[in-house]
Amino acid sequence: MGTLKQSEITPEAIGEGRTRYLVHTQKLMMAVIDFRDGPTREPDPPHSHPHEQISYVVSGELIVLIGDEQTRLGPGDMFAVPPDIPHTVQLLTEYVRLVDTFYPIRDEFLNQ
Amino acid sequence: MGTLKQSEITPEAIGEGRTRYLVHTQKLMMAVIDFRDGPTREPDPPHSHPHEQISYVVSGELIVLIGDEQTRLGPGDMFAVPPDIPHTVQLLTEYVRLVDTFYPIRDEFLNQ
Repeated sequence: MGTLKQSEITPEAIGEGRTRYLVHTQKLMMAVIDFRDGPTREPDPPHSHPHEQISYVVSGELIVLIGDEQTRLGPGDMFAVPPDIPHTVQLLTEYVRLVDTFYPIRDEFLNQ
Repeated sequence: MGTLKQSEITPEAIGEGRTRYLVHTQKLMMAVIDFRDGPTREPDPPHSHPHEQISYVVSGELIVLIGDEQTRLGPGDMFAVPPDIPHTVQLLTEYVRLVDTFYPIRDEFLNQ
């Protein structure tokens, strides 16, 4: 019931140099995102979604842009994204790992 | 809006050798728990709550006990706890960091 060992799974490729693995319950989803394509010259295109999001920086340095605010974050830092607010990241190091959590779950992440 | 830098906050003491800092939105909560009292000879007493929980292991090694199942986990691993299922941890290393996320928020964590 409900454990995921990183050594036993193959993360899903979600773009050039980027992978994701995830766990979800009924209403809660946690996705581990590895970016290996940094540093990036400019932020990714902003996106938004109706889900509440909180993220934790495991590794690397990045700029997080949420609405009109931008903040440089590193390991141990967190950020929260309210519903429908455009947000994105710019990678400052080659490798960045984020733990993104969502309520409710991102159904589109399951359509594989 | 919604960033927390670890270097700018003082984590809350939640027991001997254990601290926590957290962020929440309306329905989603993320808490970073640092355990510095490991290894522990036996599991903590089990507890349960009606909240859905998903956790990520940032650092250290531990055994996670969920219902009748126990699993050894380390960095990059995750576990999910359904509502009302007793669960606990036993620390295998001196230092363990977990990122615990909950839906809905743990109101009792805000009563300070």
